[in-house]
Parts: sequence; structure tokens; C-alpha cells
Amino acid sequence: MKIGIYGYGNLGRGVELAIRQNPDMELAGVFTRRDPASLKTLTGAPVYAAAQAKDFAGKIDVMILCGGSATDLPEMTPEIVKMFNVVDSFDTHARVPEHFANVDREAQLHGHTAIISAGWDPGLFSLARLYMNCVLPDGKDYTFWGRGVSQGHSDAIRRIPGVKDARQYTVPVESAVQRVRSGENPELTTRDKHTRECFVVAEEGADKALIEKQIKEMPNYFADYNTTVCFITEEEMKREHSELPHGGQVIRSGSTGADGNHHHVMEFSLKLDSNPEFTGSVLAACARAVQRMNARGIFGCKTVFDVPPADLSILSPEEIRKHLL
Amino acid sequence: MKIGIYGYGNLGRGVELAIRQNPDMELAGVFTRRDPASLKTLTGAPVYAAAQAKDFAGKIDVMILCGGSATDLPEMTPEIVKMFNVVDSFDTHARVPEHFANVDREAQLHGHTAIISAGWDPGLFSLARLYMNCVLPDGKDYTFWGRGVSQGHSDAIRRIPGVKDARQYTVPVESAVQRVRSGENPELTTRDKHTRECFVVAEEGADKALIEKQIKEMPNYFADYNTTVCFITEEEMKREHSELPHGGQVIRSGSTGADGNHHHVMEFSLKLDSNPEFTGSVLAACARAVQRMNARGIFGCKTVFDVPPADLSILSPEEIRKHLL
Repeated sequence: MKIGIYGYGNLGRGVELAIRQNPDMELAGVFTRRDPASLKTLTGAPVYAAAQAKDFAGKIDVMILCGGSATDLPEMTPEIVKMFNVVDSFDTHARVPEHFANVDREAQLHGHTAIISAGWDPGLFSLARLYMNCVLPDGKDYTFWGRGVSQGHSDAIRRIPGVKDARQYTVPVESAVQRVRSGENPELTTRDKHTRECFVVAEEGADKALIEKQIKEMPNYFADYNTTVCFITEEEMKREHSELPHGGQVIRSGSTGADGNHHHVMEFSLKLDSNPEFTGSVLAACARAVQRMNARGIFGCKTVFDVPPADLSILSPEEIRKHLL
Repeated sequence: MKIGIYGYGNLGRGVELAIRQNPDMELAGVFTRRDPASLKTLTGAPVYAAAQAKDFAGKIDVMILCGGSATDLPEMTPEIVKMFNVVDSFDTHARVPEHFANVDREAQLHGHTAIISAGWDPGLFSLARLYMNCVLPDGKDYTFWGRGVSQGHSDAIRRIPGVKDARQYTVPVESAVQRVRSGENPELTTRDKHTRECFVVAEEGADKALIEKQIKEMPNYFADYNTTVCFITEEEMKREHSELPHGGQVIRSGSTGADGNHHHVMEFSLKLDSNPEFTGSVLAACARAVQRMNARGIFGCKTVFDVPPADLSILSPEEIRKHLL
């Protein structure tokens, strides 16, 4: 199957490398809104201007959209699905219904298939929550993220005057994770669940105390968390913080039985060296499912909840049953 | 939806209690090959003779088959699927292709839908293995079971002359789990992964040393494991070992990246107070999916790999996207 990548940042590169690990996939090209001549892909795949994408309609089975959720995908996905089957990683939770409806309308109209909000959260973690809720209706689930780099929070710090560079790690509070894991079903506030560690390179002569105060008091991003700020040099930033690790876990604990006295704890966890490469790997698997569902006449907008798991696999149904059941 | 339970042992009772936790389900009746008058259900559901099941064709949406895999299900599932949509928990791995084919033939012929091999392993663990393999093609996965009671191994001990009662716990070797979890991808033998703890009540005057030797040397069941045998009294057995806890974990670690130098560890784990009640809860959720797939004209034999996750949920697609994505 022929895959296109639309948008070539960290995630686009992650998808590019993932495609190489799936022998049934071939990268037909990378599409960018930058000058194609300015880009060199990791694997030597050809680069085209975004505007050229339309010439590939019918020649690319699935286009994987690697734009951001804030401004790119809400316009990009409904537009590109007119020409291609698509996969995106839209993760603005509150705007999912609107995005879903926009993509669904165009996909139905053009006989294409889309999977939106793929990745690990939303994505694999969503699946974990769903399976766990179906199996243990009486229970409570918790999602913890980290230890990992949050791009959004890092960007928010970088926008503070006097900040040259910043990296923010979201860190789950281990004692809270342990309480949940023990089946205690605690009530946890935002502050109870995660802390935020900020590593900041300040401009020369900047007021570090003021920067620290501005970070810690920033509404939505940091004010509701126990936040630590650590000033480091550019060299330290480069040496210690150039990777994009992430991870986390979904835990549900619940009960069954005549008196509800049997407790069960289910947990799905990820420990990832590279968030964009892992997310790219999930998107690649979803591209396979999109193509198969489309070939079966299943059109419109879908999420991982609608995908029969077997459709994600390169193996035949017989092989899956033999090796993985 | 109306559910029937066919076979009323530990698993049948687990399903009965699970149905009570799913407000869209109603237990129409329990079907038994024993004398119906001899059975009293936990929830007061009516009991019928197995032979009466045919009178309920068209009146029960899904029959959940709670027989054993060794001799019951291979005959039961292909027979009952002629009359009903069914779910079973067939777990004899080597015979899955044959069982699948037998069930599929009858299900197709009669316009019914079956999910076989549902539960947690096979079942949820199978799903974990599949998703993990799709997302990390270059890696290795491991399944650990326990600490939990293995009915098959307990029964094997009970067949030894001089044994009055026995309970066998399968125990994962914690150091092996830790090595896998660290991403080391070790080669592990059967002996490296699990130990077996046996609690035995001996008949009066029995040769305990001989019983211990017979257990430890029993091929397939114990010979390949480090096995401990502990003789206890009937009272201790009743007091300490009357529950059926179980659990385990599936761990896959693999790599991505330009040089394969980014490592990722995925883990799905369960800690269960009651194996039959938890398994029963999985079967109940699968019954919901079976009914929906059948209503959609999807006939034949399926496994959890073929079930769109949303079909397992009592929630609408909109609610699922809103609350769980």
C-alpha cells in the first residue's frame, strides 16, 4: 500500500521511520507547505509541495496527516479527505465532536475513510479505557501521563520574555499511582496526580525570579500543579534534554461479585523513548486499517473504537488466531 | 437484550453476576445438564434442562456457553450455534483452528454469530498482544500469568492417589518480569518465567514424600518448573485457599528510529480477585457485541480480533468519543 505523509515535523519523521518497519507499506512522498527544495527526508523519500497533493489522488492509498491539532488539522483533515483516505492524530478533546462531524461529512461525500485522533492518547489509551469500562462497569479509571516532555507546555514557557529555550516534563506522582494501583479508588485532584518539571535557558541578564514566578502562576498550564523550575545552560539543554520521551498509564479498578467484594485492577502502561516515533507507529498501523475498511465500503469518519483490531495487523486472520490468540 | 447461560459452574455463576452489572441485559435462564430442580441460582434466575434450550430459539439473543474446553465446548458450541448467537471461552490453543472451523460452518449455515475464545487469556491478553505487535513490529512480547489458581493444575494433583484436595498457584518469577519490563528482551525458558506452588491435603496415612515426587515429576504440568509442595490441613485449605484469584501481564518491548535506538515498553496487566467473575464479565461484554454484529448481518465465527471495540460498550458512539477518547 502506498502512503503519503502530509506535514513534515517530528511526527512526520516518526511516521516515515515507522513505514520502513512495515513491509506492506511504501512511502510515496512527503507533502509540505514549506519549500520542497528546503527539505531532505530521513529515508530519501521524495518531497512535494502541499499543493501538488491533488495530483496524487488515486495513486496514494492513505495520506497520514501530521499537522498540529490547534490550527492545522481542523482545516486540513476535512480538506484532504476529499482526495484521500486519511489518518490524523487530532487531540483537542473538546473539539472532537465538531472535527468528527466535519471530517465525516466530506469523507462520506467522497467515498473515503478517515481515522481521527489516533496515537497513544487519544488512541491506545482510549482503547484501554473503553475495554476496561466494558469489562468492569462498576469501577473508576485514572490516566497518568509521563514522565515525558509536553510540547505544549514547553512552548508556553518559551513565549515568556527572557526565555531562550525550555523543556517541560510532566511527571506522575508515584504515590498517587500506587494508591490507584492498589485498588483504593481515591479522589485525586489535578495537583495530586502530576507535577511539572521545567528546564529553562534564560537570556543573558534576564530576571530569573520573575520568569520562575510567571511560569508557576500561568493559568491552565502550571497554576494548578506543583511546579519546579530549574535554570540550565544551552549546553546542558542540548546534552540532557534533546530527546522526546513520554509514556504513562491507564488504570481501572472495579468490583464484581454477589456483594461487590471481589476487586480487580487493570492497567495499560507505556514507557516511550520517543513520543513522535511511537505515535507515528500507531498512525502507520491505522493507515492499514483505513485502507482495508475503505476497500470494504466502510466510508466516513472513524476512530480506533470502530476499527476491528485484526484490520491493524499485517498478518492474516488465520495467522493472528494461531500466533496471538 | 436477553441472555442465556449454558452450564452453571464457577464461570456460569460469574456470568450471572456480570449480567446484573449491565443494565441493558436480562438473564432469561440458566441451562444445565444436571437436574434443574437440584440447582438454585445466585440471583433467582430460572433453571432449565439443557434439552429445553431449543424451545428458547428466537427468545434469547445470545447464549453464553460456560462449559469446559477439554470436552464440553468442542461439541457444545457448534451445536448450540445452530439455535443461538453464542459466546464461549474456548482456551485449548492448539485446537482453535479446528474449533473455529466447526463453529463457523454451523453459524454461517444458520445465520448466527459466535465469538469463541473470549475471556482474559485468550481474550484481553490476545488483544494486548495484537495491538502491541501492530504498533511495534520490531520487538518481542512476553506473557506472564499469576499469581493465580490454575484449575487444570489443581485437578492434575487431585488425581494422584492419596490426595484429598489440592490448590496450585502459578507464580511469575518477579526478576524475569523486571528484566522484560526494563526492555532487555531476554531469552527465557519455561522454568525462568514461572514457578508453581502446590498446597495439598493428603489422605490420612498417605505417603507424602511419594505424592511430592509424583507432583514434581509430572510431565507437562510440573516437570519443567521449579515446583514447591506444601501439605496443609483441610481447615487451612478452606480458610486460606477458597478464592480463585488470578492475573498476569503481557509486555512487549521493541524499538523504532533511524538506527532502532529508541526503545519502547508496552504493558497490559491484570490483578484479579476472582478469575471466573472477571472472565464472566468479559463474556457478558462480548455477548453485547455478538448481538450487534448479528443484527448488522455479520454471521459466522469471530474472535475478539474481529470485534470493533465500540460494539462491546453500552454507551453510544457519541458518548464513547466524548468520555473515553
